[in-house]
Amino acid sequence: MIGLSGYAGVMESLMNPDPAEEQQPSSPLANSWSLKQESSKNPKPKCVGGFVLVHAGAGYHSESKAKEYKHVCKRACQRAVDRLKAGALAVEAVAAALVELEDSPFTNAGMGSNLNLSGEIECDASIMDGKSLHYGAVGAISGIKNPVLVANRLLIEAQKGKLSAGRIPPCFLVGRGAHDWAVGHGIPPCLSQKMATKFSLSAYKRNKRKMELAEKMDTGHNPAKKRRQSSENDNGSGCLDTVGAIVVDLEGNVAAAVSSGGLAMKHPGRVGQAAHYGCGCWAENACNMNPYSTAVSTSGCGEHLIRTMLARECSAAVQSEDAHQALLEAMQNKFIMEFLWSHTTESMCVGYMSTQDSKAKTHISRLPPGTIPGQCLAIEGGVCRLTSVVE
Amino acid sequence: MIGLSGYAGVMESLMNPDPAEEQQPSSPLANSWSLKQESSKNPKPKCVGGFVLVHAGAGYHSESKAKEYKHVCKRACQRAVDRLKAGALAVEAVAAALVELEDSPFTNAGMGSNLNLSGEIECDASIMDGKSLHYGAVGAISGIKNPVLVANRLLIEAQKGKLSAGRIPPCFLVGRGAHDWAVGHGIPPCLSQKMATKFSLSAYKRNKRKMELAEKMDTGHNPAKKRRQSSENDNGSGCLDTVGAIVVDLEGNVAAAVSSGGLAMKHPGRVGQAAHYGCGCWAENACNMNPYSTAVSTSGCGEHLIRTMLARECSAAVQSEDAHQALLEAMQNKFIMEFLWSHTTESMCVGYMSTQDSKAKTHISRLPPGTIPGQCLAIEGGVCRLTSVVE
Repeated sequence: MIGLSGYAGVMESLMNPDPAEEQQPSSPLANSWSLKQESSKNPKPKCVGGFVLVHAGAGYHSESKAKEYKHVCKRACQRAVDRLKAGALAVEAVAAALVELEDSPFTNAGMGSNLNLSGEIECDASIMDGKSLHYGAVGAISGIKNPVLVANRLLIEAQKGKLSAGRIPPCFLVGRGAHDWAVGHGIPPCLSQKMATKFSLSAYKRNKRKMELAEKMDTGHNPAKKRRQSSENDNGSGCLDTVGAIVVDLEGNVAAAVSSGGLAMKHPGRVGQAAHYGCGCWAENACNMNPYSTAVSTSGCGEHLIRTMLARECSAAVQSEDAHQALLEAMQNKFIMEFLWSHTTESMCVGYMSTQDSKAKTHISRLPPGTIPGQCLAIEGGVCRLTSVVE
Repeated sequence: MIGLSGYAGVMESLMNPDPAEEQQPSSPLANSWSLKQESSKNPKPKCVGGFVLVHAGAGYHSESKAKEYKHVCKRACQRAVDRLKAGALAVEAVAAALVELEDSPFTNAGMGSNLNLSGEIECDASIMDGKSLHYGAVGAISGIKNPVLVANRLLIEAQKGKLSAGRIPPCFLVGRGAHDWAVGHGIPPCLSQKMATKFSLSAYKRNKRKMELAEKMDTGHNPAKKRRQSSENDNGSGCLDTVGAIVVDLEGNVAAAVSSGGLAMKHPGRVGQAAHYGCGCWAENACNMNPYSTAVSTSGCGEHLIRTMLARECSAAVQSEDAHQALLEAMQNKFIMEFLWSHTTESMCVGYMSTQDSKAKTHISRLPPGTIPGQCLAIEGGVCRLTSVVE
């Protein structure tokens, strides 16, 4: 791959508290991001080898839990790098990173996910292989500890070609059917009760009380007024934390994956961006049409991220001439590998590691003190920019 | 709207029998379509008023059933036009057209849908309002006669704003959760047995025998060989028939909707393009950024249409400079309203009608005699062009 292209990695989160303000899908260039492999000052760039970047989800990360988030990001990076060193391709390594993120009781994915309106856990996950452009996704799946492994298995099965009698293998399964397919393909079921944690259960009880109180207060008002009033209680109830990772393997292939328990108190059967093609993750190796390999993972409110198709838009923007120029200017020929992320939520925990590093680095990125995400969104026309460059 | 912009309507179907041949999302410009309201030779174009275009699904339409398909397309057009004349907006009229298409036992949507591997009916549907850009979708929903009405209701509810305690209303629900939400919002349940028809049941039995035979023949071979062999039985078993419609109302707003029973013998829980944002349908009123209003409805194999994001790609292509030029050349200033469609499957039944027409026109569009869709796909690099212009 070296000499043919660099690669771009994108970490994005977007949250707009009012859907009415976001009728137009936001411009992909309203956000900034990039990862590039070569230095234009150095005619023989050093090969960086494998690389992984993970995030523990957009939302609010309290100072008290910062340590936990950093730990899980480090473990996820290490897991992916171990696989890469053992010769695994990007898609296998990215799945391994996601398993670690899902297994943490502190993230809103797999174990410890948000509970829905009925007190159940239903998860979304997807994975994309930049080499084959194959994609696998599950939506509203219950009773499976690691939803990303089902998405990955769908991807693997689809790559094998057609089923008996010329049937096309599925790339997206939901609900009970997804659960049964997973179990039929050797992925063990897990009791739903085991997936809820003390934290997720107490958050559910708190959210339920809050809902009941809000509905009680609104009794007697007309529905329109009720809606407006309640919208002022702005999402304090649930974290908006899709976790994700992007990986570049030793051959230069890219892959991306995301996993989410979805919004707290969502309606059963609700599917968010983590299961939507082009919305949750995107990975595309460089080819004749695309000078850069790109891998993208998004996190934030599913309904908004679906409408912006953020993952694919980011990938496309990186390929555009304007974006190349922007990246070149930002990167100033000074590095071997670099990436950027942006977010509009209060904070975001990321970790990154290459196969040449002895351990992962982590960082909790926060909006500047005193900044209110909603205000930023209003000031900057639909999307708040906050870009952090890590060298 | 007149004077500000024209509008473009798109009817697309795409089928590629081999996923391996379609790793790269096809160029949006590889397909042709358009609908434009104004004549550049006439400085005061005549207002056409409302317009509807429906299709009964891509696939193979036997000569013997041609009459039935034409009838249902006519009824669907009439239903939408009646609503438009009564002052309904585009989104309401497009839902009315879809209900008629779903209620026909001859289409693969609602009543008479393909049965899945377990002998059950699970439907996908989505709807998009070009005025608000709001979107509603259901996936793998059972026991509801008109899935498009659930998608439409999700769209309506989302437009009302947030739920109690600041919760964001869902835009995409699947499976049992979608069914329960629908019933909770006054949409009556329907016994699944009532949705199967004599035709869909006999097709299920035929497909099941075919599958068993194919699997028997492959016994003893290794799985890879089995896959390759079986892929030669190319999709003869099921029609690939998502139905859809696009509407322009008297105010010039556009809307689009699709509905599908999915692939025959699909795995339970499988969701196809008809429920995927940007893949099944797209509608976007003209605005500062987009000179044309566009409405798109796609039909064909879901797994491929998801990967091409065909509906949104078509819409974007119509807005591009190149597409404008292409449209201008094709239309040659000679009409008030015109549309094009293209398909790569053997045939496609379409109907269209304006509020000024006394009855709908229908047409079964077929590939030229002797053309094999697969051959065309190979020759033209992923997408076969067949464009029909209707004046």
